[in-house]
Amino acid sequence: MARHRFDCSLRWSDMDAFGHVNNTTFFTYLEEARVDLLFVHAGESVARERLSSGIVVARHEIDYSVPLVFRPETVPIDVWVSRLGTSSFELRYQILDEGGPVYAEAATVLVPFDMVAGRPRRVSDEERAALEPFLEAS
Amino acid sequence: MARHRFDCSLRWSDMDAFGHVNNTTFFTYLEEARVDLLFVHAGESVARERLSSGIVVARHEIDYSVPLVFRPETVPIDVWVSRLGTSSFELRYQILDEGGPVYAEAATVLVPFDMVAGRPRRVSDEERAALEPFLEAS
Amino acid sequence: MARHRFDCSLRWSDMDAFGHVNNTTFFTYLEEARVDLLFVHAGESVARERLSSGIVVARHEIDYSVPLVFRPETVPIDVWVSRLGTSSFELRYQILDEGGPVYAEAATVLVPFDMVAGRPRRVSDEERAALEPFLEAS
Amino acid sequence: MARHRFDCSLRWSDMDAFGHVNNTTFFTYLEEARVDLLFVHAGESVARERLSSGIVVARHEIDYSVPLVFRPETVPIDVWVSRLGTSSFELRYQILDEGGPVYAEAATVLVPFDMVAGRPRRVSDEERAALEPFLEAS
Repeated sequence: MARHRFDCSLRWSDMDAFGHVNNTTFFTYLEEARVDLLFVHAGESVARERLSSGIVVARHEIDYSVPLVFRPETVPIDVWVSRLGTSSFELRYQILDEGGPVYAEAATVLVPFDMVAGRPRRVSDEERAALEPFLEAS
Repeated sequence: MARHRFDCSLRWSDMDAFGHVNNTTFFTYLEEARVDLLFVHAGESVARERLSSGIVVARHEIDYSVPLVFRPETVPIDVWVSRLGTSSFELRYQILDEGGPVYAEAATVLVPFDMVAGRPRRVSDEERAALEPFLEAS
Repeated sequence: MARHRFDCSLRWSDMDAFGHVNNTTFFTYLEEARVDLLFVHAGESVARERLSSGIVVARHEIDYSVPLVFRPETVPIDVWVSRLGTSSFELRYQILDEGGPVYAEAATVLVPFDMVAGRPRRVSDEERAALEPFLEAS
Repeated sequence: MARHRFDCSLRWSDMDAFGHVNNTTFFTYLEEARVDLLFVHAGESVARERLSSGIVVARHEIDYSVPLVFRPETVPIDVWVSRLGTSSFELRYQILDEGGPVYAEAATVLVPFDMVAGRPRRVSDEERAALEPFLEAS
Protein backbone atom coordinates (compact mmCIF):
# COMPACT_ATOMS: atom_id res chain seq x y z
CA MET A 1 0.00 0.00 0.00
CA ALA A 2 1.92 2.99 -1.29
CA ARG A 3 -0.71 5.62 -0.62
CA HIS A 4 -1.04 7.43 2.67
CA ARG A 5 -4.52 8.47 3.72
CA PHE A 6 -5.06 11.61 5.76
CA ASP A 7 -8.51 12.45 7.10
CA CYS A 8 -8.76 16.21 6.82
CA SER A 9 -11.03 18.26 9.09
CA LEU A 10 -12.98 21.00 7.40
CA ARG A 11 -13.72 24.29 9.11
CA TRP A 12 -16.87 26.27 8.62
CA SER A 13 -14.70 29.31 7.94
CA ASP A 14 -13.06 27.49 5.00
CA MET A 15 -16.09 28.50 2.98
CA ASP A 16 -16.07 31.75 1.07
CA ALA A 17 -18.86 34.13 0.08
CA PHE A 18 -20.06 31.62 -2.55
CA GLY A 19 -20.79 29.08 0.21
CA HIS A 20 -18.13 26.60 -0.97
CA VAL A 21 -14.72 25.74 0.40
CA ASN A 22 -12.54 28.42 -1.20
CA ASN A 23 -10.23 27.11 -3.92
CA THR A 24 -7.15 28.44 -2.10
CA THR A 25 -8.09 26.46 1.02
CA PHE A 26 -7.55 23.20 -0.89
CA PHE A 27 -3.83 23.99 -0.75
CA THR A 28 -4.07 24.21 3.03
CA TYR A 29 -5.70 20.77 3.01
CA LEU A 30 -2.88 19.46 0.79
CA GLU A 31 -0.36 21.01 3.17
CA GLU A 32 -1.94 19.21 6.12
CA ALA A 33 -1.81 15.90 4.23
CA ARG A 34 1.81 16.57 3.25
CA VAL A 35 2.78 17.51 6.81
CA ASP A 36 1.08 14.37 8.09
CA LEU A 37 3.05 12.26 5.62
CA LEU A 38 6.46 13.95 5.84
CA PHE A 39 6.57 15.18 9.46
CA VAL A 40 4.62 12.42 11.19
CA HIS A 41 4.53 9.15 9.23
CA ALA A 42 7.59 8.98 6.95
CA GLY A 43 10.49 6.85 8.14
CA GLU A 44 12.55 7.29 11.28
CA SER A 45 12.66 10.44 13.36
CA VAL A 46 15.98 11.47 11.82
CA ALA A 47 14.50 11.49 8.32
CA ARG A 48 11.38 13.27 9.52
CA GLU A 49 13.52 15.94 11.16
CA ARG A 50 15.14 16.72 7.80
CA LEU A 51 11.88 16.42 5.87
CA SER A 52 10.23 18.89 8.21
CA SER A 53 12.94 21.55 8.20
CA GLY A 54 14.89 21.20 4.96
CA ILE A 55 12.35 21.00 2.13
CA VAL A 56 10.83 23.81 0.07
CA VAL A 57 7.80 23.79 -2.23
CA ALA A 58 8.87 24.52 -5.81
CA ARG A 59 5.62 23.96 -7.69
CA HIS A 60 1.94 23.14 -7.23
CA GLU A 61 -0.75 22.20 -9.69
CA ILE A 62 -4.37 21.35 -9.00
CA ASP A 63 -7.47 20.41 -10.99
CA TYR A 64 -10.85 20.97 -9.35
CA SER A 65 -13.80 18.76 -10.25
CA VAL A 66 -16.59 19.11 -7.71
CA PRO A 67 -17.28 21.88 -5.16
CA LEU A 68 -16.83 20.98 -1.51
CA VAL A 69 -19.16 22.28 1.21
CA PHE A 70 -18.48 22.37 4.95
CA ARG A 71 -19.56 19.31 6.89
CA PRO A 72 -18.64 17.97 10.32
CA GLU A 73 -17.13 14.80 8.80
CA THR A 74 -13.54 14.77 7.61
CA VAL A 75 -12.68 14.48 3.92
CA PRO A 76 -10.13 11.80 2.95
CA ILE A 77 -6.97 12.85 1.12
CA ASP A 78 -4.76 10.22 -0.50
CA VAL A 79 -1.16 11.30 -0.90
CA TRP A 80 1.77 9.41 -2.40
CA VAL A 81 5.24 9.92 -3.89
CA SER A 82 4.85 9.98 -7.67
CA ARG A 83 8.50 10.72 -8.51
CA LEU A 84 11.65 10.39 -6.41
CA GLY A 85 14.63 12.04 -8.11
CA THR A 86 18.10 12.99 -6.95
CA SER A 87 17.41 16.67 -6.31
CA SER A 88 13.63 16.81 -6.08
CA PHE A 89 10.56 14.64 -5.60
CA GLU A 90 6.88 14.95 -6.39
CA LEU A 91 3.80 14.20 -4.32
CA ARG A 92 0.38 13.56 -5.82
CA TYR A 93 -2.93 13.86 -4.03
CA GLN A 94 -6.57 12.99 -4.47
CA ILE A 95 -9.24 14.64 -2.33
CA LEU A 96 -12.18 12.31 -2.55
CA ASP A 97 -15.03 10.63 -0.74
CA GLU A 98 -14.93 6.85 -0.55
CA GLY A 99 -17.37 5.71 -3.23
CA GLY A 100 -18.14 9.33 -4.00
CA PRO A 101 -16.81 12.25 -5.98
CA VAL A 102 -13.19 13.23 -6.51
CA TYR A 103 -13.15 16.89 -5.46
CA ALA A 104 -9.66 17.67 -6.72
CA GLU A 105 -6.39 16.12 -7.90
CA ALA A 106 -3.09 17.86 -7.31
CA ALA A 107 0.69 17.56 -7.41
CA THR A 108 3.54 19.28 -5.57
CA VAL A 109 7.23 19.36 -6.48
CA LEU A 110 9.44 19.50 -3.39
CA VAL A 111 13.12 20.40 -3.31
CA PRO A 112 15.52 19.54 -0.48
CA PHE A 113 17.20 22.76 0.59
CA ASP A 114 20.24 23.55 2.68
CA MET A 115 18.85 26.41 4.76
CA VAL A 116 22.26 27.41 6.14
CA ALA A 117 24.06 27.46 2.79
CA GLY A 118 20.98 28.89 1.11
CA ARG A 119 20.93 26.51 -1.84
CA PRO A 120 19.26 23.28 -3.04
CA ARG A 121 20.77 20.00 -1.93
CA ARG A 122 20.37 16.36 -2.99
CA VAL A 123 17.77 14.01 -1.55
CA SER A 124 19.61 12.29 1.30
CA ASP A 125 19.71 8.52 1.78
CA GLU A 126 17.58 8.77 4.92
CA GLU A 127 14.99 10.83 3.06
CA ARG A 128 14.97 8.36 0.16
CA ALA A 129 14.44 5.45 2.53
CA ALA A 130 11.63 7.32 4.26
CA LEU A 131 9.88 8.22 1.01
CA GLU A 132 10.25 4.96 -0.93
CA PRO A 133 7.44 3.10 0.88
CA PHE A 134 5.05 5.75 -0.45
CA LEU A 135 6.37 5.64 -4.04
CA GLU A 136 3.83 4.83 -6.73
CA ALA A 137 5.16 5.93 -10.11
CA SER A 138 2.44 7.45 -12.27
CA MET B 1 -23.73 17.55 31.73
CA ALA B 2 -24.15 21.08 30.46
CA ARG B 3 -20.85 21.42 28.70
CA HIS B 4 -20.33 20.40 25.11
CA ARG B 5 -16.91 19.10 24.16
CA PHE B 6 -15.53 19.69 20.68
CA ASP B 7 -12.25 18.11 19.62
CA CYS B 8 -10.58 20.71 17.44
CA SER B 9 -8.06 19.77 14.75
CA LEU B 10 -5.01 21.96 14.55
CA ARG B 11 -3.34 22.78 11.25
CA TRP B 12 0.37 23.24 10.77
CA SER B 13 -0.40 26.52 9.05
CA ASP B 14 -2.16 27.81 12.18
CA MET B 15 1.30 28.66 13.51
CA ASP B 16 2.75 32.07 12.83
CA ALA B 17 6.35 33.27 12.44
CA PHE B 18 6.87 32.83 16.21
CA GLY B 19 6.20 29.09 15.88
CA HIS B 20 3.00 29.18 17.98
CA VAL B 21 -0.64 28.99 17.00
CA ASN B 22 -1.39 32.62 16.18
CA ASN B 23 -3.61 34.36 18.72
CA THR B 24 -6.21 35.22 16.06
CA THR B 25 -6.54 31.54 15.12
CA PHE B 26 -7.96 30.80 18.57
CA PHE B 27 -11.11 32.62 17.42
CA THR B 28 -11.35 30.24 14.47
CA TYR B 29 -11.14 27.35 16.94
CA LEU B 30 -13.89 28.95 19.05
CA GLU B 31 -15.96 29.40 15.90
CA GLU B 32 -15.61 25.71 15.06
CA ALA B 33 -16.70 24.75 18.60
CA ARG B 34 -19.61 27.19 18.38
CA VAL B 35 -20.68 25.89 14.96
CA ASP B 36 -20.48 22.33 16.27
CA LEU B 37 -22.72 23.25 19.20
CA LEU B 38 -25.24 25.50 17.46
CA PHE B 39 -25.41 24.04 13.93
CA VAL B 40 -24.91 20.34 14.68
CA HIS B 41 -25.77 19.40 18.27
CA ALA B 42 -28.31 21.89 19.64
CA GLY B 43 -31.94 20.78 19.70
CA GLU B 44 -34.12 19.85 16.77
CA SER B 45 -33.37 20.66 13.15
CA VAL B 46 -35.79 23.60 13.18
CA ALA B 47 -33.91 25.27 16.00
CA ARG B 48 -30.54 24.54 14.41
CA GLU B 49 -31.74 26.07 11.15
CA ARG B 50 -32.44 29.35 12.96
CA LEU B 51 -29.28 29.17 15.07
CA SER B 52 -27.18 28.69 11.95
CA SER B 53 -28.67 31.48 9.86
CA GLY B 54 -30.12 34.07 12.22
CA ILE B 55 -27.46 34.82 14.85
CA VAL B 56 -24.72 37.45 14.84
CA VAL B 57 -21.62 37.78 17.00
CA ALA B 58 -21.82 40.98 19.07
CA ARG B 59 -18.78 40.59 21.31
CA HIS B 60 -15.77 38.39 22.03
CA GLU B 61 -13.30 38.33 24.87
CA ILE B 62 -10.41 35.97 25.42
CA ASP B 63 -7.64 35.46 27.96
CA TYR B 64 -4.56 33.54 26.86
CA SER B 65 -2.56 31.51 29.38
CA VAL B 66 -0.23 29.08 27.64
CA PRO B 67 1.07 29.03 24.03
CA LEU B 68 -0.21 26.25 21.82
CA VAL B 69 2.02 24.50 19.27
CA PHE B 70 0.89 22.39 16.30
CA ARG B 71 0.47 18.69 16.96
CA PRO B 72 -1.38 15.95 15.11
CA GLU B 73 -3.71 15.37 18.07
CA THR B 74 -6.85 17.46 18.48
CA VAL B 75 -7.22 19.94 21.31
CA PRO B 76 -10.41 19.74 23.39
CA ILE B 77 -12.66 22.80 23.65
CA ASP B 78 -15.42 22.91 26.23
CA VAL B 79 -18.27 25.24 25.33
CA TRP B 80 -21.44 26.03 27.24
CA VAL B 81 -24.23 28.62 27.54
CA SER B 82 -23.30 30.95 30.40
CA ARG B 83 -26.25 33.34 30.02
CA LEU B 84 -29.56 32.95 28.21
CA GLY B 85 -31.43 36.26 27.98
CA THR B 86 -34.42 37.44 26.00
CA SER B 87 -32.53 39.23 23.26
CA SER B 88 -29.03 37.76 23.53
CA PHE B 89 -27.09 34.86 25.01
CA GLU B 90 -23.49 34.20 25.95
CA LEU B 91 -21.25 31.22 25.31
CA ARG B 92 -18.14 30.49 27.36
CA TYR B 93 -15.24 28.30 26.28
CA GLN B 94 -12.17 26.64 27.71
CA ILE B 95 -9.41 25.38 25.42
CA LEU B 96 -7.54 22.86 27.52
CA ASP B 97 -5.82 19.51 27.63
CA GLU B 98 -7.36 16.90 29.92
CA GLY B 99 -5.18 16.96 33.03
CA GLY B 100 -2.98 19.56 31.36
CA PRO B 101 -2.83 23.29 30.79
CA VAL B 102 -5.71 25.64 30.03
CA TYR B 103 -4.54 27.44 26.89
CA ALA B 104 -7.26 30.08 26.84
CA GLU B 105 -10.65 31.01 28.24
CA ALA B 106 -13.12 33.02 26.20
CA ALA B 107 -16.69 34.30 25.93
CA THR B 108 -18.93 35.33 23.03
CA VAL B 109 -22.15 37.35 23.15
CA LEU B 110 -24.56 36.28 20.40
CA VAL B 111 -27.62 38.20 19.23
CA PRO B 112 -30.55 36.69 17.30
CA PHE B 113 -31.02 38.78 14.18
CA ASP B 114 -33.80 39.12 11.65
CA MET B 115 -31.75 39.18 8.46
CA VAL B 116 -34.69 40.23 6.29
CA ALA B 117 -35.84 43.11 8.50
CA GLY B 118 -32.24 43.98 9.33
CA ARG B 119 -32.67 44.24 13.07
CA PRO B 120 -32.19 42.24 16.29
CA ARG B 121 -34.98 39.91 17.35
CA ARG B 122 -35.82 37.99 20.52
CA VAL B 123 -34.53 34.53 21.34
CA SER B 124 -37.28 32.22 20.02
CA ASP B 125 -38.85 29.44 22.07
CA GLU B 126 -37.24 26.79 19.86
CA GLU B 127 -33.83 28.39 20.31
CA ARG B 128 -34.32 28.61 24.08
CA ALA B 129 -35.26 24.95 24.24
CA ALA B 130 -32.23 24.03 22.14
CA LEU B 131 -29.82 26.06 24.27
CA GLU B 132 -31.11 25.28 27.76
CA PRO B 133 -29.49 21.82 28.01
CA PHE B 134 -26.12 23.57 27.66
CA LEU B 135 -26.85 26.27 30.25
CA GLU B 136 -24.43 26.52 33.14
CA ALA B 137 -24.74 29.92 34.79
CA SER B 138 -21.37 31.30 35.84
CA MET C 1 -0.99 47.65 -22.27
CA ALA C 2 -2.52 44.24 -21.84
CA ARG C 3 -1.30 43.55 -18.33
CA HIS C 4 -3.15 44.68 -15.25
CA ARG C 5 -1.07 45.54 -12.23
CA PHE C 6 -2.43 44.95 -8.74
CA ASP C 7 -0.49 46.13 -5.70
CA CYS C 8 -1.04 43.44 -3.09
CA SER C 9 -0.81 44.17 0.63
CA LEU C 10 1.01 41.59 2.68
CA ARG C 11 -0.06 40.73 6.22
CA TRP C 12 2.32 39.81 8.99
CA SER C 13 0.17 36.74 9.62
CA ASP C 14 0.77 35.54 6.05
CA MET C 15 4.06 34.16 7.29
CA ASP C 16 4.25 30.63 8.58
CA ALA C 17 6.50 28.99 11.18
CA PHE C 18 9.43 29.17 8.72
CA GLY C 19 9.21 32.98 8.73
CA HIS C 20 8.22 33.20 5.03
CA VAL C 21 4.91 33.93 3.38
CA ASN C 22 3.31 30.48 3.31
CA ASN C 23 3.13 28.92 -0.16
CA THR C 24 -0.66 28.55 0.09
CA THR C 25 -1.03 32.28 0.76
CA PHE C 26 0.28 33.05 -2.73
CA PHE C 27 -3.04 31.73 -4.04
CA THR C 28 -4.83 34.26 -1.88
CA TYR C 29 -2.67 36.97 -3.43
CA LEU C 30 -3.53 35.65 -6.90
CA GLU C 31 -7.19 35.64 -5.94
CA GLU C 32 -6.99 39.28 -4.89
CA ALA C 33 -5.33 40.20 -8.21
CA ARG C 34 -7.96 38.20 -10.09
CA VAL C 35 -10.83 39.79 -8.17
CA ASP C 36 -9.34 43.22 -8.82
CA LEU C 37 -9.19 42.47 -12.54
CA LEU C 38 -12.51 40.66 -13.02
CA PHE C 39 -14.75 42.30 -10.40
CA VAL C 40 -13.39 45.86 -10.46
CA HIS C 41 -11.54 46.72 -13.67
CA ALA C 42 -12.83 44.53 -16.51
CA GLY C 43 -15.31 46.12 -18.89
CA GLU C 44 -18.75 47.48 -18.08
CA SER C 45 -20.68 46.77 -14.92
CA VAL C 46 -22.84 44.18 -16.68
CA ALA C 47 -19.81 42.10 -17.65
CA ARG C 48 -18.29 42.46 -14.19
CA GLU C 49 -21.53 41.27 -12.64
CA ARG C 50 -21.29 38.03 -14.61
CA LEU C 51 -17.55 37.68 -14.11
CA SER C 52 -18.00 38.03 -10.36
CA SER C 53 -20.85 35.58 -9.94
CA GLY C 54 -20.69 33.08 -12.79
CA ILE C 55 -17.10 31.87 -13.04
CA VAL C 56 -15.44 28.90 -11.36
CA VAL C 57 -11.77 28.04 -10.92
CA ALA C 58 -10.97 24.81 -12.78
CA ARG C 59 -7.20 24.66 -12.43
CA HIS C 60 -4.22 26.42 -10.87
CA GLU C 61 -0.50 26.00 -11.35
CA ILE C 62 2.30 27.92 -9.73
CA ASP C 63 6.11 27.92 -9.79
CA TYR C 64 7.92 29.46 -6.83
CA SER C 65 11.34 31.06 -7.30
CA VAL C 66 12.23 33.25 -4.32
CA PRO C 67 10.81 33.30 -0.77
CA LEU C 68 8.77 36.34 0.19
CA VAL C 69 8.99 37.91 3.66
CA PHE C 70 6.47 40.29 5.26
CA ARG C 71 7.09 43.98 4.66
CA PRO C 72 4.88 47.04 4.98
CA GLU C 73 5.17 47.77 1.25
CA THR C 74 2.84 46.10 -1.23
CA VAL C 75 4.11 43.53 -3.73
CA PRO C 76 3.15 44.07 -7.38
CA ILE C 77 1.24 41.34 -9.21
CA ASP C 78 0.88 41.47 -12.99
CA VAL C 79 -2.13 39.59 -14.30
CA TRP C 80 -3.30 39.15 -17.88
CA VAL C 81 -5.51 36.93 -20.05
CA SER C 82 -3.25 34.36 -21.72
CA ARG C 83 -5.98 32.41 -23.50
CA LEU C 84 -9.58 33.33 -24.32
CA GLY C 85 -11.54 30.32 -25.57
CA THR C 86 -15.22 29.65 -26.12
CA SER C 87 -15.85 27.76 -22.90
CA SER C 88 -12.90 28.72 -20.71
CA PHE C 89 -10.11 31.27 -20.38
CA GLU C 90 -6.76 31.39 -18.68
CA LEU C 91 -5.13 34.07 -16.57
CA ARG C 92 -1.38 34.28 -16.00
CA TYR C 93 0.35 36.10 -13.17
CA GLN C 94 3.77 37.26 -12.12
CA ILE C 95 4.47 38.25 -8.53
CA LEU C 96 7.58 40.41 -8.74
CA ASP C 97 9.39 43.48 -7.51
CA GLU C 98 10.11 46.16 -10.10
CA GLY C 99 13.75 45.64 -10.99
CA GLY C 100 13.92 42.85 -8.45
CA PRO C 101 13.15 39.17 -8.11
CA VAL C 102 10.21 37.26 -9.55
CA TYR C 103 8.76 35.50 -6.51
CA ALA C 104 6.36 33.26 -8.42
CA GLU C 105 4.65 32.72 -11.76
CA ALA C 106 1.21 31.16 -11.97
CA ALA C 107 -1.76 30.39 -14.18
CA THR C 108 -5.47 29.81 -13.53
CA VAL C 109 -8.06 28.24 -15.85
CA LEU C 110 -11.49 29.76 -15.34
CA VAL C 111 -14.78 28.32 -16.58
CA PRO C 112 -18.01 30.30 -17.00
CA PHE C 113 -20.71 28.45 -15.11
CA ASP C 114 -24.47 28.62 -15.07
CA MET C 115 -25.09 28.46 -11.32
CA VAL C 116 -28.85 27.91 -11.71
CA ALA C 117 -28.61 25.11 -14.27
CA GLY C 118 -25.52 23.72 -12.55
CA ARG C 119 -23.39 23.32 -15.65
CA PRO C 120 -20.62 25.07 -17.62
CA ARG C 121 -21.67 27.70 -20.14
CA ARG C 122 -19.92 29.55 -22.98
CA VAL C 123 -17.99 32.78 -22.54
CA SER C 124 -20.57 35.48 -23.25
CA ASP C 125 -20.00 38.36 -25.67
CA GLU C 126 -19.93 40.88 -22.83
CA GLU C 127 -17.34 38.80 -20.99
CA ARG C 128 -15.24 38.46 -24.15
CA ALA C 129 -15.33 42.22 -24.71
CA ALA C 130 -14.37 42.82 -21.08
CA LEU C 131 -11.44 40.37 -21.19
CA GLU C 132 -9.97 41.16 -24.63
CA PRO C 133 -8.15 44.35 -23.55
CA PHE C 134 -6.14 42.17 -21.14
CA LEU C 135 -5.33 39.47 -23.69
CA GLU C 136 -1.67 38.74 -24.30
CA ALA C 137 -1.25 35.35 -25.92
CA SER C 138 1.74 33.47 -24.54
CA MET D 1 -1.84 63.38 18.00
CA ALA D 2 -1.72 60.25 20.07
CA ARG D 3 -3.59 57.96 17.71
CA HIS D 4 -1.91 56.05 14.93
CA ARG D 5 -3.95 55.45 11.79
CA PHE D 6 -3.43 52.31 9.75
CA ASP D 7 -5.20 51.86 6.43
CA CYS D 8 -6.08 48.19 6.28
CA SER D 9 -6.55 46.34 2.98
CA LEU D 10 -9.47 43.98 2.83
CA ARG D 11 -9.33 40.74 0.89
CA TRP D 12 -12.25 39.22 -0.94
CA SER D 13 -11.51 35.97 0.88
CA ASP D 14 -11.98 37.69 4.24
CA MET D 15 -15.70 37.21 3.71
CA ASP D 16 -17.38 34.08 4.98
CA ALA D 17 -20.41 32.15 3.75
CA PHE D 18 -22.68 34.93 5.08
CA GLY D 19 -21.06 37.40 2.65
CA HIS D 20 -19.55 39.56 5.42
CA VAL D 21 -16.00 39.89 6.68
CA ASN D 22 -15.82 37.03 9.18
CA ASN D 23 -15.73 38.14 12.81
CA THR D 24 -12.44 36.32 13.41
CA THR D 25 -10.79 38.24 10.56
CA PHE D 26 -11.22 41.49 12.50
CA PHE D 27 -8.47 40.21 14.81
CA THR D 28 -6.19 39.84 11.81
CA TYR D 29 -6.94 43.46 10.93
CA LEU D 30 -6.15 44.49 14.51
CA GLU D 31 -2.93 42.51 14.32
CA GLU D 32 -1.90 44.33 11.16
CA ALA D 33 -2.61 47.70 12.82
CA ARG D 34 -0.67 46.59 15.92
CA VAL D 35 2.27 45.36 13.85
CA ASP D 36 2.28 48.63 11.92
CA LEU D 37 2.40 50.57 15.20
CA LEU D 38 4.83 48.43 17.19
CA PHE D 39 7.13 47.01 14.49
CA VAL D 40 7.22 49.92 12.05
CA HIS D 41 6.31 53.26 13.63
CA ALA D 42 7.09 53.14 17.36
CA GLY D 43 10.29 54.80 18.48
CA GLU D 44 13.84 53.92 17.52
CA SER D 45 14.89 50.70 15.87
CA VAL D 46 16.18 49.30 19.18
CA ALA D 47 12.77 49.67 20.80
CA ARG D 48 11.00 48.24 17.75
CA GLU D 49 13.32 45.24 17.82
CA ARG D 50 12.16 44.44 21.35
CA LEU D 51 8.52 45.27 20.64
CA SER D 52 8.53 42.93 17.66
CA SER D 53 10.17 39.94 19.33
CA GLY D 54 9.49 40.18 23.06
CA ILE D 55 5.78 40.86 23.51
CA VAL D 56 2.91 38.40 23.92
CA VAL D 57 -0.84 38.92 23.61
CA ALA D 58 -2.51 38.25 26.97
CA ARG D 59 -6.06 39.33 26.26
CA HIS D 60 -8.38 40.61 23.53
CA GLU D 61 -11.86 42.04 23.64
CA ILE D 62 -13.96 43.33 20.78
CA ASP D 63 -17.43 44.79 20.27
CA TYR D 64 -18.95 44.59 16.80
CA SER D 65 -21.41 47.24 15.62
CA VAL D 66 -21.85 47.13 11.85
CA PRO D 67 -21.05 44.34 9.36
CA LEU D 68 -18.18 44.99 6.97
CA VAL D 69 -18.28 43.87 3.32
CA PHE D 70 -15.33 43.50 0.96
CA ARG D 71 -14.43 46.58 -1.07
CA PRO D 72 -11.30 47.60 -2.96
CA GLU D 73 -10.77 50.60 -0.66
CA THR D 74 -8.90 50.21 2.61
CA VAL D 75 -10.66 50.58 5.96
CA PRO D 76 -9.05 52.93 8.50
CA ILE D 77 -8.06 51.58 11.91
CA ASP D 78 -7.13 53.96 14.71
CA VAL D 79 -4.89 52.43 17.35
CA TRP D 80 -3.46 53.99 20.49
CA VAL D 81 -1.95 53.08 23.86
CA SER D 82 -4.73 53.28 26.45
CA ARG D 83 -2.69 52.11 29.44
CA LEU D 84 1.06 51.90 29.98
CA GLY D 85 1.93 49.98 33.13
CA THR D 86 5.12 48.50 34.49
CA SER D 87 4.54 44.93 33.38
CA SER D 88 1.88 45.27 30.69
CA PHE D 89 0.22 47.80 28.42
CA GLU D 90 -3.07 48.04 26.57
CA LEU D 91 -3.87 49.08 23.03
CA ARG D 92 -7.31 50.25 21.94
CA TYR D 93 -8.61 50.28 18.39
CA GLN D 94 -11.47 51.67 16.36
CA ILE D 95 -12.27 50.27 12.92
CA LEU D 96 -14.28 53.01 11.26
CA ASP D 97 -14.95 54.95 8.08
CA GLU D 98 -14.22 58.67 8.20
CA GLY D 99 -17.65 60.26 8.66
CA GLY D 100 -19.21 56.82 8.52
CA PRO D 101 -19.94 53.88 10.76
CA VAL D 102 -17.74 52.43 13.49
CA TYR D 103 -17.53 48.74 12.56
CA ALA D 104 -15.89 47.57 15.78
CA GLU D 105 -14.02 48.72 18.88
CA ALA D 106 -11.43 46.53 20.54
CA ALA D 107 -8.66 46.33 23.13
CA THR D 108 -5.59 44.14 23.55
CA VAL D 109 -3.46 43.61 26.67
CA LEU D 110 0.19 43.02 25.80
CA VAL D 111 2.85 41.64 28.13
CA PRO D 112 6.61 42.02 27.63
CA PHE D 113 8.12 38.56 27.77
CA ASP D 114 11.64 37.25 28.18
CA MET D 115 11.58 34.49 25.57
CA VAL D 116 14.89 32.97 26.75
CA ALA D 117 14.00 32.85 30.43
CA GLY D 118 10.40 31.95 29.59
CA ARG D 119 8.75 34.50 31.86
CA PRO D 120 7.17 37.96 31.84
CA ARG D 121 9.47 40.94 32.17
CA ARG D 122 8.97 44.66 32.87
CA VAL D 123 8.32 47.25 30.20
CA SER D 124 11.80 48.55 29.35
CA ASP D 125 12.71 52.26 29.26
CA GLU D 126 13.16 52.13 25.48
CA GLU D 127 9.74 50.53 25.05
CA ARG D 128 8.15 53.12 27.35
CA ALA D 129 9.71 55.95 25.37
CA ALA D 130 8.52 54.38 22.12
CA LEU D 131 4.96 53.91 23.35
CA GLU D 132 4.40 57.19 25.21
CA PRO D 133 3.76 59.30 22.09
CA PHE D 134 0.76 57.06 21.39
CA LEU D 135 -0.62 57.19 24.95
CA GLU D 136 -4.16 58.47 25.34
CA ALA D 137 -5.55 57.38 28.69
CA SER D 138 -9.20 56.36 28.46
